[in-house]
Amino acid sequence: MNDIDIETLKGIANQLRIHSITSTTAAGSGHPTSCCSAADVVAALFFAHMRYNPKDPHFYNNDRFILSKGHAAPLLYAAWAEAGLFPTEELLKLRQLNSDLEGHPTPRLPFADVATGSLGQGLSVGVGMALCARLDNLDYRTYVLLGDGEIAEGSVWEAASLAGVNHLNNLVAIVDVNRLGQSQPTAFGHDLDVYKNRFESFGWRTEEIDGHDLDEIVEVLAAVGLGDQPLVILAKTLKGAGISFIQDKEGWHGKPLSKDEAARAIAELQPTAKSGAGLAIPTPNHLPAPNNQSPGAYPPTNYNLGDMVATREAFGAALLRIGEVDPRVVALDGDTKNSTYSEKFFKKFPTRFCECFIAEQNMVGVATGYGARGKVPFASTFATFFTRAFDQLRVAGISMANLKLVGSHVGVSIGEDGPSQMGLEDIAMMRAVAGSTVLYPSDAVSTEKLMDQMAAQKGIFFLRTSRPKTPVIYGNEEAFPIGGAKVLRQADGDKVTVVAAGVTLNEALKAHDSLKAEGIGITVIDAYSIKPLARDVIKSAAQATNNIVLTVEDHYAQGGIGDTVAGELSAEGIKVHKLAVFELPHSGKPEELLARYGIDAAAIVRKVKSL
Amino acid sequence: MNDIDIETLKGIANQLRIHSITSTTAAGSGHPTSCCSAADVVAALFFAHMRYNPKDPHFYNNDRFILSKGHAAPLLYAAWAEAGLFPTEELLKLRQLNSDLEGHPTPRLPFADVATGSLGQGLSVGVGMALCARLDNLDYRTYVLLGDGEIAEGSVWEAASLAGVNHLNNLVAIVDVNRLGQSQPTAFGHDLDVYKNRFESFGWRTEEIDGHDLDEIVEVLAAVGLGDQPLVILAKTLKGAGISFIQDKEGWHGKPLSKDEAARAIAELQPTAKSGAGLAIPTPNHLPAPNNQSPGAYPPTNYNLGDMVATREAFGAALLRIGEVDPRVVALDGDTKNSTYSEKFFKKFPTRFCECFIAEQNMVGVATGYGARGKVPFASTFATFFTRAFDQLRVAGISMANLKLVGSHVGVSIGEDGPSQMGLEDIAMMRAVAGSTVLYPSDAVSTEKLMDQMAAQKGIFFLRTSRPKTPVIYGNEEAFPIGGAKVLRQADGDKVTVVAAGVTLNEALKAHDSLKAEGIGITVIDAYSIKPLARDVIKSAAQATNNIVLTVEDHYAQGGIGDTVAGELSAEGIKVHKLAVFELPHSGKPEELLARYGIDAAAIVRKVKSL
Repeated sequence: MNDIDIETLKGIANQLRIHSITSTTAAGSGHPTSCCSAADVVAALFFAHMRYNPKDPHFYNNDRFILSKGHAAPLLYAAWAEAGLFPTEELLKLRQLNSDLEGHPTPRLPFADVATGSLGQGLSVGVGMALCARLDNLDYRTYVLLGDGEIAEGSVWEAASLAGVNHLNNLVAIVDVNRLGQSQPTAFGHDLDVYKNRFESFGWRTEEIDGHDLDEIVEVLAAVGLGDQPLVILAKTLKGAGISFIQDKEGWHGKPLSKDEAARAIAELQPTAKSGAGLAIPTPNHLPAPNNQSPGAYPPTNYNLGDMVATREAFGAALLRIGEVDPRVVALDGDTKNSTYSEKFFKKFPTRFCECFIAEQNMVGVATGYGARGKVPFASTFATFFTRAFDQLRVAGISMANLKLVGSHVGVSIGEDGPSQMGLEDIAMMRAVAGSTVLYPSDAVSTEKLMDQMAAQKGIFFLRTSRPKTPVIYGNEEAFPIGGAKVLRQADGDKVTVVAAGVTLNEALKAHDSLKAEGIGITVIDAYSIKPLARDVIKSAAQATNNIVLTVEDHYAQGGIGDTVAGELSAEGIKVHKLAVFELPHSGKPEELLARYGIDAAAIVRKVKSL
Repeated sequence: MNDIDIETLKGIANQLRIHSITSTTAAGSGHPTSCCSAADVVAALFFAHMRYNPKDPHFYNNDRFILSKGHAAPLLYAAWAEAGLFPTEELLKLRQLNSDLEGHPTPRLPFADVATGSLGQGLSVGVGMALCARLDNLDYRTYVLLGDGEIAEGSVWEAASLAGVNHLNNLVAIVDVNRLGQSQPTAFGHDLDVYKNRFESFGWRTEEIDGHDLDEIVEVLAAVGLGDQPLVILAKTLKGAGISFIQDKEGWHGKPLSKDEAARAIAELQPTAKSGAGLAIPTPNHLPAPNNQSPGAYPPTNYNLGDMVATREAFGAALLRIGEVDPRVVALDGDTKNSTYSEKFFKKFPTRFCECFIAEQNMVGVATGYGARGKVPFASTFATFFTRAFDQLRVAGISMANLKLVGSHVGVSIGEDGPSQMGLEDIAMMRAVAGSTVLYPSDAVSTEKLMDQMAAQKGIFFLRTSRPKTPVIYGNEEAFPIGGAKVLRQADGDKVTVVAAGVTLNEALKAHDSLKAEGIGITVIDAYSIKPLARDVIKSAAQATNNIVLTVEDHYAQGGIGDTVAGELSAEGIKVHKLAVFELPHSGKPEELLARYGIDAAAIVRKVKSL
């Protein structure tokens, strides 16, 4: 701690309260009472404890602060303004279209590493950052401020468990126990011991404090980093603390004060309020910067045409090949690494691998945390189990995260395990993530080449891999630009353009040969890039086949390749017919299921003939 | 317990092991070792403890058994076969296309109330069933068998917390702690105390046992129901128990034994194996059956044209109106009930309402549990927070569940709270759930009429409601059949068919008037039923406007109304142009955002003119 006195901290806390009240009243919406409960803790963290450069929020050894209770955004904004990052006058632009001081924080602001606002996600990101600090030999700490209501989210306990297992003593959670949720009191009110027992059973050190007693807050913060466990500070607080006529009252969640109420509140707070402007903030240590440099290019692949290699195996090979030359690459899995083939990387680089166990929400959050610290995280599991983390993925979109997801075991082609293990909705899900890229290779070479680009480019990428072995159909020199597609078969007089990817591409090629023997020509396109789609390639091919397209996919009919192509090209007069999984599938052999659900070569032949 | 002796139970356990081995070896895939670890517990539950009618798995007062570790399906199937429900010879059809003994259990089987196989979901369903037993004054108990690996899923702790808060002493969890996950040992191995401390901190009574000691198992089961807490039995087991050359070894997850290995294993087990056939199973008490009768019809609505009512408010009114005459209706919310308006129902029927706090995965699981016991559960939260439960929703599809979801606060029209609170992907998600129905009303009357059908019909329904108030545009006598659409404006010479729903329908009507003043006619359709879509209505209208359709939606461009219409109708030669949210939105005022993202009346006018 620096030599700031407690009275000054109390004054800053009240100044932060005033900013939170004035900005939400000006906006006409927001959560001032959720700011007030946490104001003392935030004042202590930002002005007496955390080591950071307030003019350079991205400095690599700054302590990190994640506002998991994102609805207290005005408090966060006020803290950074008082710390000197931007003028406090800006705070009055809260929630306006022309200001990035949005209703909940996003990385449009330089001090928000990730978006928050969907509750229960911040601790996972914090775990990723704490693991990253350890990997990079940096001594920054990660602080996560949570609300007591969000502790009900299971993702918090997934994160807590992994933090405990990894003995992350560079991670500090603070729970603002103000006892009031949105619509009623929380289940446990001010009974801090409930939370204490839970966190302790998950491997954490715990401290209980009065969250409005700055002496206590400062004292407990001084003991951060002791021992080999993560620390949670359970702060008993009052919602709306400092506003005598509102504090600890129900019915004040998410409501700004009227102008009159705001004036009364400010009259109570103003006499002791102090600006934090110009105060010295503890500075981070200058340690060697982490090596987060891209190698520029990756080693070539070495497959032979006709080799039988599942795309999931090619992913595993690519991860290792890329990881050997790119120090930024880290990998995560949810206890499926022997099925997804991320195990290869794990065996070679155990310290760059995070086994997340069966907890996909946390896995995505941890990966987002790594990405926010300059790493290139590849998280893998069965494609369908990423549905577990859709909210985290959605928020990663808002975070403009650098996140690489690889989902294996897609579609009915997995066979006997049955529908609970089949990825049949992952394309629909991943396309709907803001800024995402969705890739679906059909052979080993294209898988590896797409992996190169996933590692090299920033953003959220999803690679869909398959369980069955499929033949290598491309040479090692072939390029697979994102947004492209391959026209594999095309001849004058073709009747239909068949668009496929993954296992159905091989079915389409078989159908091509079968139809050709009967004198019927079809164009076959490998749509390995679903988002962005190679609309011009498909459009040109379709125009040569009387505008008729047939999509074939091992995915539900809703939101998959067919809907994508139709949604992009129907306005151009292209007629899109779909073969897809139209009903809840059953267990069975892969080839039986491809036939039963009408996405095999025979089904393509039948459909082409009917067109 | 009945008077069965321990030696017989041991024999049955080994018989269940033999069935698990032979069926998976015959199938060539499956998880025999995960069956063997739980065989003793299952033998005791099914043949010495649970009260149920093995010939009538649906009897309303049978004890319920949920195999949360669904990959041990062969063990479950063997238990029901040995109990006499079907011939044991059927077990050899495991995982075949022509048998419903699938890789993981689904309700295609009469004894599987819900599908399992995506781990960590069974306990939530169990909580719903235990709450339902209490509501119905029945004394059946709910038993949930979990693996230790799946305890890492946060959803388990969401369920555990709610069970503790509600003192569900009619709920029993058994954790099969066999210490080995799929790809490596679990984080805690055989350290049962870790699990004990966690469950106790979540409000549970705990018992630690040797899961292969039937004396201990039977003894601890005899104490089920004591006290006012849920009970968890932590069973220390060996994966592959009973097979000397496999048990407790890594590398045996999800692998069938070869024929030779199976023969060796059976040779070890056979000498002590006993069939359960003909043994008396404890019978359930005959208590009055619950009243799960539909009232047949619901009271009428009473709105005036032009009233300004948000569809979320109409949902709240409908829930109360329906709930007053339909005893099957229960409601759940995730601490948003004052925003979704489910609060009205809560205030009137507190015992039929389950506050799930901020834990949406569990909320969906609990609702699925209620539905599996004959109730009509309505679960509500912000639409975008249902993404948290996509895996549960996906599995509810496999469960063919009776589940009603109502998501409020959709799209950029929520305004200042920003993208983390905006439902912009919920249509894409919900369409991709097997067997789902997706509804998106634009006014209060249509909302209420759709709610009537949601309550009356079995299946998974999603109702998308909006935050802003919108005018009542339909009379109280109007019908809104699912799969229908309303042609609201249509005239000879119309140039474009505009398809909209929710807030954009009002924008389309404004655009109609504005364009009409300029002499340009457009057809306007209210597509209140997104899945199933009124394809014929839209097609006919489009054919009268030169096959040109313009969709307008407050949802991301991917997987929403535009893709739906294009996916259904592009093959018919309909050209679908889309107005939707094409980029990550920002905070701002609702009307500003509708304009910024190009889905307001002015944007429609511009687009129509450009066509």
